Amino acid sequence: MPIKQISIIGVGLIGGSFAKGLKARKHKAKIFGFGYSEHKLNRAIELGVIDEFSLNIKEAVKNADLIMVAVPMGSFKKVFQQIKPFIKQDAIISDAGSSKMSVIKAAEDAFGKKFTNFVPAHPIAGKEKSGIEATDENLYEQHKVILTPTKITDIKAVEKVTNLWQLLGATVIEMLPQEHDEVLAASSHLPHILAFALVDLLAKQKDLPNVFDFTSGGFKDFSRIASSDPTMWRDITLNNSTAIIKWLKNYQTELTKITTMVEQNKENELFQLFNHAKKTRDKHVLKKEKAKP
Amino acid sequence: MPIKQISIIGVGLIGGSFAKGLKARKHKAKIFGFGYSEHKLNRAIELGVIDEFSLNIKEAVKNADLIMVAVPMGSFKKVFQQIKPFIKQDAIISDAGSSKMSVIKAAEDAFGKKFTNFVPAHPIAGKEKSGIEATDENLYEQHKVILTPTKITDIKAVEKVTNLWQLLGATVIEMLPQEHDEVLAASSHLPHILAFALVDLLAKQKDLPNVFDFTSGGFKDFSRIASSDPTMWRDITLNNSTAIIKWLKNYQTELTKITTMVEQNKENELFQLFNHAKKTRDKHVLKKEKAKP
Repeated sequence: MPIKQISIIGVGLIGGSFAKGLKARKHKAKIFGFGYSEHKLNRAIELGVIDEFSLNIKEAVKNADLIMVAVPMGSFKKVFQQIKPFIKQDAIISDAGSSKMSVIKAAEDAFGKKFTNFVPAHPIAGKEKSGIEATDENLYEQHKVILTPTKITDIKAVEKVTNLWQLLGATVIEMLPQEHDEVLAASSHLPHILAFALVDLLAKQKDLPNVFDFTSGGFKDFSRIASSDPTMWRDITLNNSTAIIKWLKNYQTELTKITTMVEQNKENELFQLFNHAKKTRDKHVLKKEKAKP
Repeated sequence: MPIKQISIIGVGLIGGSFAKGLKARKHKAKIFGFGYSEHKLNRAIELGVIDEFSLNIKEAVKNADLIMVAVPMGSFKKVFQQIKPFIKQDAIISDAGSSKMSVIKAAEDAFGKKFTNFVPAHPIAGKEKSGIEATDENLYEQHKVILTPTKITDIKAVEKVTNLWQLLGATVIEMLPQEHDEVLAASSHLPHILAFALVDLLAKQKDLPNVFDFTSGGFKDFSRIASSDPTMWRDITLNNSTAIIKWLKNYQTELTKITTMVEQNKENELFQLFNHAKKTRDKHVLKKEKAKP
């Protein structure tokens, strides 16, 4: 069965860029938006992000063959419960949430443990800006999208979701949900928390009222992710808390080790550690940067 | 007495940009370079960084009215000892080291506790690239330079050093050496160590061999300073160890607090902390960025 209507629940940066990318690549489905702001949804039509919209979630999902839920981590449970009575029997539901175990749990709670058409997904892409004005039809080009199907997920539903992301230029990878949550806790959630923690710590120092006057480019880059949306990051943190707590503790162990090296003036060990970090980053992150168009 | 010769010990990014900036602004002094590589020093002349050079440190300093020592933190002690027999009696010595207490100690050890012409200085500027090819006559424009004169430092020497930095477009600020080392430990040295620590930690995980394949823009920026020179950062860390150990411990306390919030699902506290960090960074760091030309 071809996909005739795709409904986007949450037409922000992530959901809107998904929609806009499909329209820009002439996907034949009608792209239908749902949100709370008529003004923003009208802008979404003007910007070529969606074809139609409704402020009524029933109207938005009742004819959808595929529903992309791109809402904050804290809202999945509510949205799944809201759409459940109105979805077509064979509708595929996917998402764009930053942690997967908790979204899978929310889907199970709403649709039941036998619902095979939920395809958990996480596109590894973003921008500093959010919202409809920041949407970008090429946001996912050369980015990874991780799908985390469970034991019961229908393979045809996975294929359809995969095809859409590939049409947008993304590389689709499959992982176990737990594995995804571990990897993302380490590579994304932990650094965000570390950056928030440093800025919060410095901001509280009454002895050093002007400390931010003496920060330079290094601090600016390091702390950029501390300018991220605090509600979004609270929700991500609490929705992936098991993996995040583990990584926070691993990181504390690493810092304790480094502190001991400094206390004991261990020149060689400190050099080896810094050098290992530099070489690893140069190899993996600089390389990736250079490979980008 | 006018400054007729300025000698730069270490014609890299920092010392070379200081030299090039003075020449570009038509300072009347002869700019003399010292280093170990004839090839690089010839390039420095070609690039308009210095007027002359010597590979012999005696020749480089014997006629200098002002000596700028811009060497790695681990080399100050040796350089001060080397130049001591050859400097003119009234020569002013200044530096560009990232921590000040240890450089002051090295100067005292070499020149004696009664030497009043050492002006400890730290320009808060840099680039990812280092070396002579990266020198930039405008590197210090609109950047801060912190001078940390001690109780015995001659006020006229401080004035002369101040004038040179101001000629380069920098804003000169005076601080106590201890205060400088505290502020820089918090605003620069700690974030560098935190970035090295995260990359080292992730690189060691055998369970997550592909973790760097899933990093995104946030990680790239956060970890950029982990691509810094490991020798330089080992030396900075060990030369400012007291303040750095203190800040590492403060940061650990902050992380322990956050871990507890996550473990106890403290939504409001976590939001407040992230929000405080975001607001602080937006106010101090984004504002500063916008003020730049």
